[in-house]
Amino acid sequence: MDNKELDSLFRPKSVAVIGASATPGKIGHSVIKNLLDGKYEGQIYPINNKLTEIQGLKCYASILDVPGPVDSAVVTIPAQYVLPVAEDCGKKGVKALIVITSGFSEVGDTALEEKLVTISRSYGMRVLGPNIVGYLSNTDKLNASFAPFLPLKGKASLITQSGALLIAIDAASYSRGVGFDKLVSIGNMSDLDFADLIAWLNDDPNTTCITLHIEGFKDGRKFIEQCRKTSKPIIALKAGVSSHGAAAAASHTGSLAGATKVYGAAFQQAGAVQATDLDNLFDRTLSLSLQPELKGDNLLIITNGGGVGVLATDAAEKYGLPLKFAPKDVQEALKEHMPEFGSAKNPVDMTGMAGNEWYKETVRYSLTHDWVDGVVVLYCETAITNPTDIAQAVYDAFQESGVKNKPVTTSFVGGERCEAAMKWLVDKGIPAYGAPDVAVNAMAALREYAQIRESISKNSEMKLVGDKGTALKVIAKARAAGRDSLTEIEAKEVFSAYGLPVTKTVLSTSEDEAVAFANKVGYPIVMKIVSPDILHKSDAGGVKVNVKDDKSVREAFQTIMKNAREYKADADIHGIAIQEMAPWGTEVIMGSINDPTFGPTVMFGLGGIFVEVLKDVTFRVAPVSCSQSKQMISEIRGAPILAGVRGEAPRDREKLAETICQYSNMILDLGDEIKESDANPILVYEEGQGVKVVDARIILKKK
Amino acid sequence: MDNKELDSLFRPKSVAVIGASATPGKIGHSVIKNLLDGKYEGQIYPINNKLTEIQGLKCYASILDVPGPVDSAVVTIPAQYVLPVAEDCGKKGVKALIVITSGFSEVGDTALEEKLVTISRSYGMRVLGPNIVGYLSNTDKLNASFAPFLPLKGKASLITQSGALLIAIDAASYSRGVGFDKLVSIGNMSDLDFADLIAWLNDDPNTTCITLHIEGFKDGRKFIEQCRKTSKPIIALKAGVSSHGAAAAASHTGSLAGATKVYGAAFQQAGAVQATDLDNLFDRTLSLSLQPELKGDNLLIITNGGGVGVLATDAAEKYGLPLKFAPKDVQEALKEHMPEFGSAKNPVDMTGMAGNEWYKETVRYSLTHDWVDGVVVLYCETAITNPTDIAQAVYDAFQESGVKNKPVTTSFVGGERCEAAMKWLVDKGIPAYGAPDVAVNAMAALREYAQIRESISKNSEMKLVGDKGTALKVIAKARAAGRDSLTEIEAKEVFSAYGLPVTKTVLSTSEDEAVAFANKVGYPIVMKIVSPDILHKSDAGGVKVNVKDDKSVREAFQTIMKNAREYKADADIHGIAIQEMAPWGTEVIMGSINDPTFGPTVMFGLGGIFVEVLKDVTFRVAPVSCSQSKQMISEIRGAPILAGVRGEAPRDREKLAETICQYSNMILDLGDEIKESDANPILVYEEGQGVKVVDARIILKKK
Repeated sequence: MDNKELDSLFRPKSVAVIGASATPGKIGHSVIKNLLDGKYEGQIYPINNKLTEIQGLKCYASILDVPGPVDSAVVTIPAQYVLPVAEDCGKKGVKALIVITSGFSEVGDTALEEKLVTISRSYGMRVLGPNIVGYLSNTDKLNASFAPFLPLKGKASLITQSGALLIAIDAASYSRGVGFDKLVSIGNMSDLDFADLIAWLNDDPNTTCITLHIEGFKDGRKFIEQCRKTSKPIIALKAGVSSHGAAAAASHTGSLAGATKVYGAAFQQAGAVQATDLDNLFDRTLSLSLQPELKGDNLLIITNGGGVGVLATDAAEKYGLPLKFAPKDVQEALKEHMPEFGSAKNPVDMTGMAGNEWYKETVRYSLTHDWVDGVVVLYCETAITNPTDIAQAVYDAFQESGVKNKPVTTSFVGGERCEAAMKWLVDKGIPAYGAPDVAVNAMAALREYAQIRESISKNSEMKLVGDKGTALKVIAKARAAGRDSLTEIEAKEVFSAYGLPVTKTVLSTSEDEAVAFANKVGYPIVMKIVSPDILHKSDAGGVKVNVKDDKSVREAFQTIMKNAREYKADADIHGIAIQEMAPWGTEVIMGSINDPTFGPTVMFGLGGIFVEVLKDVTFRVAPVSCSQSKQMISEIRGAPILAGVRGEAPRDREKLAETICQYSNMILDLGDEIKESDANPILVYEEGQGVKVVDARIILKKK
Repeated sequence: MDNKELDSLFRPKSVAVIGASATPGKIGHSVIKNLLDGKYEGQIYPINNKLTEIQGLKCYASILDVPGPVDSAVVTIPAQYVLPVAEDCGKKGVKALIVITSGFSEVGDTALEEKLVTISRSYGMRVLGPNIVGYLSNTDKLNASFAPFLPLKGKASLITQSGALLIAIDAASYSRGVGFDKLVSIGNMSDLDFADLIAWLNDDPNTTCITLHIEGFKDGRKFIEQCRKTSKPIIALKAGVSSHGAAAAASHTGSLAGATKVYGAAFQQAGAVQATDLDNLFDRTLSLSLQPELKGDNLLIITNGGGVGVLATDAAEKYGLPLKFAPKDVQEALKEHMPEFGSAKNPVDMTGMAGNEWYKETVRYSLTHDWVDGVVVLYCETAITNPTDIAQAVYDAFQESGVKNKPVTTSFVGGERCEAAMKWLVDKGIPAYGAPDVAVNAMAALREYAQIRESISKNSEMKLVGDKGTALKVIAKARAAGRDSLTEIEAKEVFSAYGLPVTKTVLSTSEDEAVAFANKVGYPIVMKIVSPDILHKSDAGGVKVNVKDDKSVREAFQTIMKNAREYKADADIHGIAIQEMAPWGTEVIMGSINDPTFGPTVMFGLGGIFVEVLKDVTFRVAPVSCSQSKQMISEIRGAPILAGVRGEAPRDREKLAETICQYSNMILDLGDEIKESDANPILVYEEGQGVKVVDARIILKKK
């Protein structure tokens, strides 16, 4: 997509308002009023065929009557009149429609929405909406919305799917002191979606950070790809993660997925920092829009109150930035600006005796010291200091240090005077918060951003090595037989085609064949019934393990066949699988779903109770690189088991990571065919000894 | 303790200020000024031997010169002069000292502090502090502190260990709109501690909720006992839970303990609701001080914006109050006040079209419906509504409903107008917050309070059934031998004395004895070396399991003895334990520490990787009732394993709970003797089959 195309939408030289109205309370009235109140400097063309003037502006009966060119048209007329108007806009050469009108796909009229997009595309017009509040930009003095005023000026830009929230955030920007350059209501995303807008905002010189409130995507992969290409921090608040009202999941992997885990994985892969709630969205927007990333883990906390220092220390651990004691030289230098009973260890407690000068010297010294990666400055309102002076001291220290690449966040705990001091600091580009742990959380966001971007830069895509032809043949055969799942043997053939280390397994259809194959595979072996009609093989008496010789193979063959017939007389029995008996190893599982938003998605976890009781699993959208696979292996709670506990040797995590990576390639490559799959268990051996996929299952997409 | 005694401290009729000063900036000046500014209506007596008048008040050279009686004396003179002044106060008949002066135990001078208490006690005086900011009470117009003004009026009272934080909170009460009746700086707690003050505040008619900021207790048990007797909500923020700077723990159970877990257990047992951080402390103080508890799980969320409704729904799940769909009749009734595209399911989304009337009708109806236990009202600022009117509507609904026993919290998302509306609502007794999830969290606090009080009322104390005499004899014998730990056999004797189901274990000192005992215990048996010098028995080749007959017993006896000698030639070997071989069961562990704050404290968890890798353990301060033990069993992450997973029968949780309960009685009864102990593993069998303590360990307190 060409970003220049969107310039007409976001920085129009002229705006038409279709459905402009002279009646206060009507949206068509509000938009005109808001454009005027915002002091928009381009041309405004009200369109209404019953009036000649609106709010002092000349009114046109049709957009076709407008004398000059029109970049962008705000549509406020009822849904049933939108299509012909879109045609007219196209004819007029309008570049973009901002469709505030509701009554499209959100009430089920998908056809109307599709027609709108088709017409627009035929004229090369882009569509924002429909079903939106509009678009607001401080830089362009453009309030093309029915939100009553432009937001507090700031450096972040926000995209939200909730119109009501946009209006509330617009107002809250002032009371919270968190400003925005642009607010975008994205609505039904009939044409322009998150990815398109992020791409444009990434090139926007007035946006330093992109804040997202997301209810759902249409195309999750497009979002991930766009975010990865973006050079600005992205903060995402995913709403709708509770299970309340969610449809029950059909599969095991599906039931473990859920919005939190899959979206969380996607944000991780996209390089977007998450916000936990609305307050956190504001807090992190402030730090990510104003401060550089936190490049290392050496955080220094400076305070005049032990109490808030302790709270901040607790928060640092909670938010993944555990404090370290400052080096000797730092401690010695800092002791110069505190009484005997102060502490220079970290948190640096200058005590209630700290005034402006101590704050200034301590902050300045800390910022310039090599060991320090970032500084959180805390202040507790006291009777002997003025919060405004302290704010000035912190700012001066920051300026005088000349240090631009280390972040600072602050917390001023106190009353109105502290609030004023904090507004002043924010205005100067230093984030300030009313509670110490919030300042630490905002700093943690700057660390998360650094880490997530680093992890992305390491994750070069894997090249795909798989024999897709063979896999498709196996699948076609099953489909031809009217099945929508593969047998274990078939699933393993598919896995093998993608180089996954499955246990040797061959299908025998007679006792003699079974004996012959058993000798080829090598004793001891495992024998299992193969039938698309018998899914729970053990329950049917269809499995024998540790079969050690020819005689036992014959006996087992007969027993299994007999059991299967008794279990289900009319079962379609393909035969009995003769399978290599893998030596004991640590059990892990992989699974996949074809997520409606993100497509093929991989799950990984430890087997047994870890997955069944603790639900200790992690997800990634496929493909997953080897370094991402290693991250998956290390982020589950049971990770130490694979690292080796209780004197046991570490497991072959290298090979396991490759296996996850290759599995992700397989489910992506076969994304049109595979609905769900799993490899359960996979046995992981000691380092250098590899892994074995013992059982495999593939459920096909219905076609 | 008699609470009347404290009335002189908290509601004095006269206050002396010792060290009163005419020099602005001095604490002795601030206190006088603050008493006057606060419009304290009792007598104020400045004491200073160099002045005759201070700030218009007659000044006395000594407290002994004061004409009338003095209830309370605020001490601001340097530490070295405090003792004689305390004597004088005692002689004068002062009832309580508020010792602002620092320089006592907090800088290591414990002796001085002890002397202060001794002197005070000898005269029947109570001491608040030393090392405090002072005490503030709105009801009594008493600002006996150097915090510059009385806090915003409110119904909660706060006790804090951080003076700096008290001053900051004092100021923040106004900017945050969260009021307090009393602020108490508790300092070094030389005499009066949290429990004493909680007891008094529980009887204070102007306090509805007690808020605590805690850095540490001296006597944790006293705190728990007092809280349990308290009929008002208590909110606790424990500061200092990070491991930064904490001393490394010596024992396994000790290393798993840590402040978060042990304090968390204590708060649970005390019936105190926890706050996670400073913001949360304010938020929960507001709801717990203004609203009744939430008696059931049927929470209804009412909103004019789908976006905030979804965020609140997510928060409800996150904070343990997952939403349910409203019953049919509720849905039908609520549909009357929303457009077609609204939703009455829950969250109840009246849409952006909702005005005052819809809010009023919907809130009123909901409060009066039997199904509804509590209501969270959300409002997103819109262009067509006025937040103040909505606030009025919510309040009117609340009033007209006549419902007093169901809580309401609200969130108004928007700008200055919303802030004003929220202040108005709070003033009327309805908590209001700037973000939807905060309103839900504040409601969750009301549910936690209901649940925690219910759980306490069920937990009647267990009666102690143990043979302490036998246990002490075993311990005395070990001590006499110069040991500070018991052998497995001795530990099991102690466990047995308290009725704990240990595996039968007898000490044999010869082959013949071993064979005789083996026959008595019954084959198969386990044989283990018994030596205080060999702790890691397996490493020393000192264990043989599944020994099946007399001949094997003799062989094993010789091998174990030989291995033990080779492992440690000079080991003091008591003999070889002959032990019943318990059949397989689910492995769990119990452990105990003698916590410096809370005394004997029990740990429980699943064995093996659950404890070693996942640290999936839970704590309670002893004694633990059976119903609390059941709570412990059900709150670990691995709980489903004991409930029965993968088709396995449930384990005997009844007997396990009794075992934990009895174990807790044992460690409490032997609290003067036992430093740490553990039972690891305990095998838990199917329901009705009981449990077996297979191994036991006791480390004694050094004496």
